[in-house]
Amino acid sequence: MGSTRGKESGILLAAQVVCIVLFGIFVEYDPAIAPRNNSTEAKQLTQATTAQFNNLYPFFQDVHVIVVIGIGLLLTFLKQYAYSSVAYNFLLTCYVIEWSVLVNGWFALIGTTETKIYINTKSLLDADFAAATVLISFCTVLGVTSPTQLTVMATIEVIFYNISFYVGVGIMEVVDVGGSMFVHGFAAFFGVGVARVLYREAQTRSDKEDSTYQSDITAMIGTLFLWLYWPSFNGSPAEGVGRQRAVVNTILSLSACVVTTFAISALINRKGKFEMVHVQNATLAGGVAMGANADLIVHPFGALLIGVAASISSSLGYSYLQPILTRRKLHDTCGVFNLHALPGMLGAFVSAIVISMATPDVYQESYSMVVRGDRTPALQAAYQIGGLLVSTAIALFGGVVTGLLLKLRVWDNLENDELFEDSIFWKTHDEPDDLSVEKIEMKE
Amino acid sequence: MGSTRGKESGILLAAQVVCIVLFGIFVEYDPAIAPRNNSTEAKQLTQATTAQFNNLYPFFQDVHVIVVIGIGLLLTFLKQYAYSSVAYNFLLTCYVIEWSVLVNGWFALIGTTETKIYINTKSLLDADFAAATVLISFCTVLGVTSPTQLTVMATIEVIFYNISFYVGVGIMEVVDVGGSMFVHGFAAFFGVGVARVLYREAQTRSDKEDSTYQSDITAMIGTLFLWLYWPSFNGSPAEGVGRQRAVVNTILSLSACVVTTFAISALINRKGKFEMVHVQNATLAGGVAMGANADLIVHPFGALLIGVAASISSSLGYSYLQPILTRRKLHDTCGVFNLHALPGMLGAFVSAIVISMATPDVYQESYSMVVRGDRTPALQAAYQIGGLLVSTAIALFGGVVTGLLLKLRVWDNLENDELFEDSIFWKTHDEPDDLSVEKIEMKE
Amino acid sequence: MGSTRGKESGILLAAQVVCIVLFGIFVEYDPAIAPRNNSTEAKQLTQATTAQFNNLYPFFQDVHVIVVIGIGLLLTFLKQYAYSSVAYNFLLTCYVIEWSVLVNGWFALIGTTETKIYINTKSLLDADFAAATVLISFCTVLGVTSPTQLTVMATIEVIFYNISFYVGVGIMEVVDVGGSMFVHGFAAFFGVGVARVLYREAQTRSDKEDSTYQSDITAMIGTLFLWLYWPSFNGSPAEGVGRQRAVVNTILSLSACVVTTFAISALINRKGKFEMVHVQNATLAGGVAMGANADLIVHPFGALLIGVAASISSSLGYSYLQPILTRRKLHDTCGVFNLHALPGMLGAFVSAIVISMATPDVYQESYSMVVRGDRTPALQAAYQIGGLLVSTAIALFGGVVTGLLLKLRVWDNLENDELFEDSIFWKTHDEPDDLSVEKIEMKE
Repeated sequence: MGSTRGKESGILLAAQVVCIVLFGIFVEYDPAIAPRNNSTEAKQLTQATTAQFNNLYPFFQDVHVIVVIGIGLLLTFLKQYAYSSVAYNFLLTCYVIEWSVLVNGWFALIGTTETKIYINTKSLLDADFAAATVLISFCTVLGVTSPTQLTVMATIEVIFYNISFYVGVGIMEVVDVGGSMFVHGFAAFFGVGVARVLYREAQTRSDKEDSTYQSDITAMIGTLFLWLYWPSFNGSPAEGVGRQRAVVNTILSLSACVVTTFAISALINRKGKFEMVHVQNATLAGGVAMGANADLIVHPFGALLIGVAASISSSLGYSYLQPILTRRKLHDTCGVFNLHALPGMLGAFVSAIVISMATPDVYQESYSMVVRGDRTPALQAAYQIGGLLVSTAIALFGGVVTGLLLKLRVWDNLENDELFEDSIFWKTHDEPDDLSVEKIEMKE
Repeated sequence: MGSTRGKESGILLAAQVVCIVLFGIFVEYDPAIAPRNNSTEAKQLTQATTAQFNNLYPFFQDVHVIVVIGIGLLLTFLKQYAYSSVAYNFLLTCYVIEWSVLVNGWFALIGTTETKIYINTKSLLDADFAAATVLISFCTVLGVTSPTQLTVMATIEVIFYNISFYVGVGIMEVVDVGGSMFVHGFAAFFGVGVARVLYREAQTRSDKEDSTYQSDITAMIGTLFLWLYWPSFNGSPAEGVGRQRAVVNTILSLSACVVTTFAISALINRKGKFEMVHVQNATLAGGVAMGANADLIVHPFGALLIGVAASISSSLGYSYLQPILTRRKLHDTCGVFNLHALPGMLGAFVSAIVISMATPDVYQESYSMVVRGDRTPALQAAYQIGGLLVSTAIALFGGVVTGLLLKLRVWDNLENDELFEDSIFWKTHDEPDDLSVEKIEMKE
Repeated sequence: MGSTRGKESGILLAAQVVCIVLFGIFVEYDPAIAPRNNSTEAKQLTQATTAQFNNLYPFFQDVHVIVVIGIGLLLTFLKQYAYSSVAYNFLLTCYVIEWSVLVNGWFALIGTTETKIYINTKSLLDADFAAATVLISFCTVLGVTSPTQLTVMATIEVIFYNISFYVGVGIMEVVDVGGSMFVHGFAAFFGVGVARVLYREAQTRSDKEDSTYQSDITAMIGTLFLWLYWPSFNGSPAEGVGRQRAVVNTILSLSACVVTTFAISALINRKGKFEMVHVQNATLAGGVAMGANADLIVHPFGALLIGVAASISSSLGYSYLQPILTRRKLHDTCGVFNLHALPGMLGAFVSAIVISMATPDVYQESYSMVVRGDRTPALQAAYQIGGLLVSTAIALFGGVVTGLLLKLRVWDNLENDELFEDSIFWKTHDEPDDLSVEKIEMKE
């Protein structure tokens, strides 16, 4: 590769300038947080918004932690790729926050006469969901992509994410409050598309694709924060009592998922031992599968069942499916297929079943949130499956297209011996050429 | 020991199935989060509950972090036991959440005509308190128990915890909002009971019972989160203005405790140096001692005094009492006796003194929360001491019985050379026998 | 230095006793959290305060995390100074919480007839801001000061911090909700004053002033929590809709700052690589610069611009200014000048520009919060610059005076070969002289 690695700086600076210009043109404060006049209506709006904000903010911060600490630390399990893991995660989050405020905002303008995007904490929460989606896709190609490739991928993925979301949630009115299909499923299949196209045999032979004792513990801190704040992830987009139901359902599902994962991990290990790969990952599958069901009335025992099923699908995925996929030339560094695709699909199917049994008597005033418009429950259930298909199709298409673009050897693409290695793009302790030290020495 | 270690998987799966069945029979959503009808009453209940939920949720999440990250990371100080520490902590939390929703719920049904347990965020907070109790007991036998033993211990301890709580808080109406007696004291004495019975000399000779520089720092992250979110732990069960008083009191007590601990640590070290064992542990004693006093009017200077006294009892405990206890055949890996039993007892005594001086004039409308029924302050103070005795007695009895059960050599009990060592139950980096890799190789 | 290092214990214990006595004399619960009578007014006050508390508490906890985890872990980057970094940070936080409740409280009594300091969660938030200030100053002398020196420094700095705050915010009514000038700027210049006086050549030659791969990752966890909870830091002192505006502005600024920092880091590294020192530090400059502007109407694109400018000033500072400062005998261990002074000054200048353009039409009812009294916008802008000068002058004066005091060789001052080294004041794993073990052995 050599010395020509200034590309990423240029792309980031250009993207930042473009974002500032577009923000100048399109983005303005929500009137509720910067009232334009002194009318009674403006005051009432402000008060109502402040109350909503006070209730949303703790959820928002939890989601923020999930994205930056949760995913960021979970990725540090690789022994020589911790700088890259945590830092690219951080960079992509911030870039996607800016970019998806714009793209999410434009999609929200479709069909309205508005021309401005009004920003508030809810917009930033939506941006965090977009960021989570991009970061999950990033996990599939962790260690085998340059930051330049990742920046390009993020730029494109945010658009496809919005298309999928617009078609699925906007037009088809699929129920998916916590994003089993439109966050996790989409992200996994998009990532799988990219990873499949970028596959090369050298990926499967690197002895750097391994963890250390300490890196496993740091990664585990990420897992724990993901587990702890997942109820806020699933609950934050929910409305009214649905939010508390989402919290209760998600905690039950995640708890059952952890218990089951430990049991299965020791069962399928030949020596009957626990494996960290399961404990770090499959323990979270219950949150993924609960996404589409979080505010539904699945009953407490049903929440536990969903957690158990998610754990089984994910744990078995890690131990049996992943080696097969690798042989089929799909190298998925973090096993996103097992943690997000399988439980995401499970969540979609379960939501179809649960919704097919919905009655106004059970859901009372939230019935119209679950069975949309004048559909029958059976029809809404069909839409749930349809949503899964749409999200998967758009994700795979977008991922493959993006992968083909990233394969062009103009994005600082990595050589075979540069995989899973920080030192390619990072100043490490082996290098004495510190610019600062040098400067001092030069002058002395 | 050998190859027969699949027991834990069987027990966990059986427990999970039992929990699902019992949840199906007993547990239903709180009507406030899943309204059964459309009446005005149902709507008012829902609104009131949503407001309570919005206020409680940030506290709940903090307690959740305390249990999973706080205790979990603090336990990783052992150099070859970090997988086990953080992961068993995680597993036990999740198992206890499920199990104690049931057991706590059944105890709450005593004396009512209800037959259903109605679940909401408050139930899950109560479950977290039960989990914290079990995890504190786990700390006493860290490194010397198999996961199977721990699962059995958790199952039994939740029952004894509820008995002690029911007798002390339900019947005797002891004041103990943050659990000096019924969480910390109970957990410590239960753990001590188990640890005493399980004692064997090999425990005191292992050179693996030590930390490393890095493991001390990871453990310290746990300490800091415990310190930061302890005000939420003590405040979450409090009502009305008592909650903010609990927050203020706990922060003051914890701050004074930290300052005092540094002073004492350097004083009692022969070379005048600080010791990490004090900084990691005794700094938290102010939160434990404040448990029974959190919502009382101890005055700000009193809160500082409680923190100082707690620090002294705990720091001296670590340096002087623990070696003595070890010689008396009580090996307490994390020094739970010093961090939870001593400050817990201190908190109980202080609460008796403070309550003995309570007047309606000082407490105004919260007087009836402090001096219960038609008792005199002196009588309530006596009940506080009574509560400590009851909790301690039930804990010790429960702990010893549980210890005797765990001693039966059917729970994957550890051999003497297997103590404080991850590799017994964990796949580690030394083992090449990865099932997945193997599968690929076999087919090639 | 030798054996006489018990001084810190004496000072801490004396300070603790003094704090308890002064709390006894001066500090009482806010009547709203411990009502003194049963009047309707008392009840209304209590209700209003409880509502405020419920909204403030999540912000407060975030700030608490920033101080203890954020700064605490960021400091652990030094390879042999992690115990000291995280623990002195913890100790100073706790000591300053106690001490600044008193000093902040006394300053708030000026000009009133009150004689009591009424404590509540807001007082503790103010104390956290004072703690953050002291900790930022601590960063300049990290590794070259004894805990005794740090304790003395904290004691004095809290007083100067309050003088600067009283003059700038109280009398001059400068607008600085998130503390660009009165927290970050003040802290940096105070620290610079101390560091300049304490400078010795040995500081610049220590090969211990370096990080390791793992210590960089632990430090990065600190950075991430600082980044995540900074919106709460800037938003917590804001009122009404200003709080949500502060959150939105700060997130936008911080996001643009991160993107820009990655771009610049790779640009100025000779090999085009990213440097962890930028990613760990300069990524946060957007939060510092937004301090004085957080609740102003800078518009979303303006928030991005502020983040970009802050990143540039800070990144260039780390790479070009810091070596120059070191040659001029200012050794600033963590580069506080680049992270807090430069972006702090930037924030002050930007606030002057923004306020000079303020109109009642744009700000509506918050106009009087921005342009104080009967000032013109231009005059208020001048006051903003005046505030920066006042804060800087008081900080430099206070820092130099404190530095001279700390230079007296009575505070356990470090020898040249004792810098950046835990083992001077900490029991480490190299020392077998565990008091506890010894005791057991002695008796056997």
